[in-house]
Amino acid sequence: MRRVIIDTDTAGDDTIALLTTLHHFKVEGVTITGGNVAFNQEVENALYTIQVAALEEKVPVYKGLERPLNAVGMTAHRTVEDVHGKDGMGGAFFDSATQRPETTHAVDFIIETIRKNPGEIELLAIAPLTNIAMAFQKDPGIIPLIAHVYVMGGTNNSLGNITAAAEYNFWVDPEAANIVLQSGVPVTMVGWDMCVAYSVMDEEDHREIEDLNTTGSRFFTAVNKVVRQFNKEVHRLPGTTHPDTLLTAIAADESIMTESHPYYVEVETQGRLTRGYSMVDINNRSGCQPNVRVCEAVDREKYKQTLIRVLSSIE
Amino acid sequence: MRRVIIDTDTAGDDTIALLTTLHHFKVEGVTITGGNVAFNQEVENALYTIQVAALEEKVPVYKGLERPLNAVGMTAHRTVEDVHGKDGMGGAFFDSATQRPETTHAVDFIIETIRKNPGEIELLAIAPLTNIAMAFQKDPGIIPLIAHVYVMGGTNNSLGNITAAAEYNFWVDPEAANIVLQSGVPVTMVGWDMCVAYSVMDEEDHREIEDLNTTGSRFFTAVNKVVRQFNKEVHRLPGTTHPDTLLTAIAADESIMTESHPYYVEVETQGRLTRGYSMVDINNRSGCQPNVRVCEAVDREKYKQTLIRVLSSIE
Amino acid sequence: MRRVIIDTDTAGDDTIALLTTLHHFKVEGVTITGGNVAFNQEVENALYTIQVAALEEKVPVYKGLERPLNAVGMTAHRTVEDVHGKDGMGGAFFDSATQRPETTHAVDFIIETIRKNPGEIELLAIAPLTNIAMAFQKDPGIIPLIAHVYVMGGTNNSLGNITAAAEYNFWVDPEAANIVLQSGVPVTMVGWDMCVAYSVMDEEDHREIEDLNTTGSRFFTAVNKVVRQFNKEVHRLPGTTHPDTLLTAIAADESIMTESHPYYVEVETQGRLTRGYSMVDINNRSGCQPNVRVCEAVDREKYKQTLIRVLSSIE
Amino acid sequence: MRRVIIDTDTAGDDTIALLTTLHHFKVEGVTITGGNVAFNQEVENALYTIQVAALEEKVPVYKGLERPLNAVGMTAHRTVEDVHGKDGMGGAFFDSATQRPETTHAVDFIIETIRKNPGEIELLAIAPLTNIAMAFQKDPGIIPLIAHVYVMGGTNNSLGNITAAAEYNFWVDPEAANIVLQSGVPVTMVGWDMCVAYSVMDEEDHREIEDLNTTGSRFFTAVNKVVRQFNKEVHRLPGTTHPDTLLTAIAADESIMTESHPYYVEVETQGRLTRGYSMVDINNRSGCQPNVRVCEAVDREKYKQTLIRVLSSIE
Repeated sequence: MRRVIIDTDTAGDDTIALLTTLHHFKVEGVTITGGNVAFNQEVENALYTIQVAALEEKVPVYKGLERPLNAVGMTAHRTVEDVHGKDGMGGAFFDSATQRPETTHAVDFIIETIRKNPGEIELLAIAPLTNIAMAFQKDPGIIPLIAHVYVMGGTNNSLGNITAAAEYNFWVDPEAANIVLQSGVPVTMVGWDMCVAYSVMDEEDHREIEDLNTTGSRFFTAVNKVVRQFNKEVHRLPGTTHPDTLLTAIAADESIMTESHPYYVEVETQGRLTRGYSMVDINNRSGCQPNVRVCEAVDREKYKQTLIRVLSSIE
Repeated sequence: MRRVIIDTDTAGDDTIALLTTLHHFKVEGVTITGGNVAFNQEVENALYTIQVAALEEKVPVYKGLERPLNAVGMTAHRTVEDVHGKDGMGGAFFDSATQRPETTHAVDFIIETIRKNPGEIELLAIAPLTNIAMAFQKDPGIIPLIAHVYVMGGTNNSLGNITAAAEYNFWVDPEAANIVLQSGVPVTMVGWDMCVAYSVMDEEDHREIEDLNTTGSRFFTAVNKVVRQFNKEVHRLPGTTHPDTLLTAIAADESIMTESHPYYVEVETQGRLTRGYSMVDINNRSGCQPNVRVCEAVDREKYKQTLIRVLSSIE
Repeated sequence: MRRVIIDTDTAGDDTIALLTTLHHFKVEGVTITGGNVAFNQEVENALYTIQVAALEEKVPVYKGLERPLNAVGMTAHRTVEDVHGKDGMGGAFFDSATQRPETTHAVDFIIETIRKNPGEIELLAIAPLTNIAMAFQKDPGIIPLIAHVYVMGGTNNSLGNITAAAEYNFWVDPEAANIVLQSGVPVTMVGWDMCVAYSVMDEEDHREIEDLNTTGSRFFTAVNKVVRQFNKEVHRLPGTTHPDTLLTAIAADESIMTESHPYYVEVETQGRLTRGYSMVDINNRSGCQPNVRVCEAVDREKYKQTLIRVLSSIE
Repeated sequence: MRRVIIDTDTAGDDTIALLTTLHHFKVEGVTITGGNVAFNQEVENALYTIQVAALEEKVPVYKGLERPLNAVGMTAHRTVEDVHGKDGMGGAFFDSATQRPETTHAVDFIIETIRKNPGEIELLAIAPLTNIAMAFQKDPGIIPLIAHVYVMGGTNNSLGNITAAAEYNFWVDPEAANIVLQSGVPVTMVGWDMCVAYSVMDEEDHREIEDLNTTGSRFFTAVNKVVRQFNKEVHRLPGTTHPDTLLTAIAADESIMTESHPYYVEVETQGRLTRGYSMVDINNRSGCQPNVRVCEAVDREKYKQTLIRVLSSIE
């Protein structure tokens, strides 16, 4: 079984992505980055989701950076409770899980795990890249020891979600995104445009999932309650969006990604309108060497069946 | 007949757009902005194209700003002879036209013409918006006297052409673009993405045009010689691109534009990677009032027939 | 007599600088740029000041750009009535002058005057450099025909006035400042630091000027009423500041400038904190060629006597 | 005895500052940040300097971040061997010290030491603020537990050294500087301008130090060999500069700082010319709360006597 660390700002679709990951991989640890909702709520959401998965073996959770790499003073980044509900769980307000987070810092856990297992560990990144970037800066020696980094973030020159120009994860911490994308580590990026084009679950899909009538499907329905409304109002999308689940499904089975190419990708950090914009240099106008394999098409049906299988398996 | 001023950095498709404009409108004057190729070459190209149209009435040509609004020192902007040929005419190197440019500055011609014909003049802008922006700054009083500005520029959150993030006209003078787009004047924007999706003339289209065997069709074939090769190599597009002709065709017959919406559009001026990027705020994440009607779909066949009619009419 | 055009956003010390200029030069025209206070108020202030000077020959006033080169929409720049009083004249609210402004635009007046008198005209710039920059962009051919440009603006790596980093004139229109400073025209820059170090008129100086008991001295006292209070409160300066008068005095008699060197000067346009900051590259860390003669020391007594003489002469 | 951690990019004056610190404080540890010269050379320079001090108790050295917080890929920052010699020791090429660096990361050492000694530890920062910023980001809980941070960095609206606008330490890592200055921790900043005004040791001073004829004085002479030449050529300064020694002397005896005020200080991160510029908002034009005590004058003689005493004491 492939071994991964999954880094998440656990809220909404992060939870389904986490279930997907727990289903397909040996998860060495779950690391939490500041992002979608209040940091401690994210930690609780991760712990609760692990409990929902009801695995035999414990999967430890590590607290990482609460705020972006360059956050100054007490300035928090912008959280998005409007998308995922106040608790980041569609307003379900689940009870706390029994498991508690570890005391080791997420950044140190990442470094130590990679150092102990050179070439063995893959990273699944479905949050701002703050923790991973800080691990790279604290110990650049781990970079060549990482098997692969799968990144949900950015867009492929398409409409963003948090701003017209930028996708949320890259927008929260564009400097961290650049550090990871330009580190030399092998990266696969699945952007917001792929999510919009292939991952939207409409009313009919939701009914199909409800009909599974498993713990997994009920959990799915609950955590997606708020985002379904949000997408209709803000993004004019007729259903729920699953960028993180798509990323983890592709990581688990690359044949879901039917088209991809290596491109030079860099994230704008200085723009007034475009902070967090991901430049995917498809026609290589910059002349820079490709550094990221960018997902450009998805087998939607295969992706959907992966999701169904994961939700069915959690009885 | 509607009365227009067309502002152009005459090279390649600008010429076909100019023919289209001369066909459909009463053209008060052609104003030249620095852009595609050497400024004086642009002036010659405009004069030659007018000669090709062989109209009874003289259409005057006015020289405007050779360089972008904020160009400093002798720094020239980047011209694109690689796209349009050294002469901007596909390497045809036509003889000089008999007609010579006027002595009045383009900026003053724009101001005076609008002042004399309040509410009557429409502007067709198929170049960097330098001249029009300077006219707006020199005499802001003309802004409410303009009927409409049709702008070929930017992209609708899609891949650019001069950089991955930016389309050439907005990239050359992003400050000018902002001045015009945010002036309060009614603007219709047709971006590079519309050109790529709807205006590409492939080998078969070119044969069809060649078969017209008119002065117009021969001129079309000549000026598109270099760009056909360029598009194949750089943009992987199987044919020639006609952003300017598309813009003028839409201006002449709005029914060619089958979908459009008013959005807030602003151009990035400060980004390191994204200078010239046009933020089209489709989901209104910025909360700003729409200021531009953005073309989102085109009746390709209708557009093509417009082009064919124009080229046929020039015997 | 040397022939000049003086460009001013007439308020406060601009008026004394204008009197100084009228005293020493043949003034071809006064051009008005948006800056200190409401544009039309600036025009009135210039006309009134010319009336105070009571010259035999008419000095025409030309209206230029009301807003900075890149101002978009109806966004006005920040005016500084807190420094100069609501009318920009220390709250004196003088009656309108009889003379009215000309109809020719300031930018065209500048271009035409220089074209007609190649090598003869010097420019005294005591406002944002908007008008002069636009003249340079509209007709770059005038640049080598200008004898010299004296610029009040920037600081020599010292504390600014409108922000900690920037002096007002450069801050209002940093792009215009760069266009002028990097045009290749010979420039002498007298910054805010020179003003603070050498031009402050304290209580005793003011009494001395009052004792002149001329029309000139009474005018001086009136227009400086508000700034005296402002300087005490904001800049902790014990008196009134005369950056514009210092500039014109130096232009009239360069021996007032006891030290100066040619340095590379460029104005920051993109900084978040530093927009308008003037980098004076004294140790040539940039490796760029010097483009500006920067005033570094002043004979204060000589300067003061120039001021006294001007105010005495207006009886 | 006050307890400190000193963070240094050990080269040139860092060594004398380290000796000064070892003389006056109980030094819990020396942490190394990437800056002046090659990282491992800096580590060696710190170890050698500790050996020169010949203390009874071991002072451990911890390796920190080799590159700035936001460094991407393998891009190194610019080192300054031109200032300090290839070895950062004036070209002395000393033998390696016997003591070796610790294995704990500098960032963790800082966090742990402060956590174990709440309110007890002061930080002396004479390098880019990378290590300290990363400690603050990794564990923001340490911020209120720090007694004080003394920072050599920035300039008080004066000429910089690495660029005209910026001082080296802030320029290398402006984001780190902002994180520290705006963290809420009590900060005293001694800028490059104070160094230039008060710390320059001229030929006579150097002779006086040579005449001490101690190990300390000989070491001083050796490490200052290259910078003496550099200052003459680049900064036109007649002697050697001691920004770090000045900072540590002030930390040891605040009466050396004869004038200081609390101001709002922020570092420019986005400027094209001004990256690393420290805005010291003396007249509070920004309206922001003061966050830094800024040194504005120094008792030069007292400072010099501190230096002499330190060098004399190392026999």
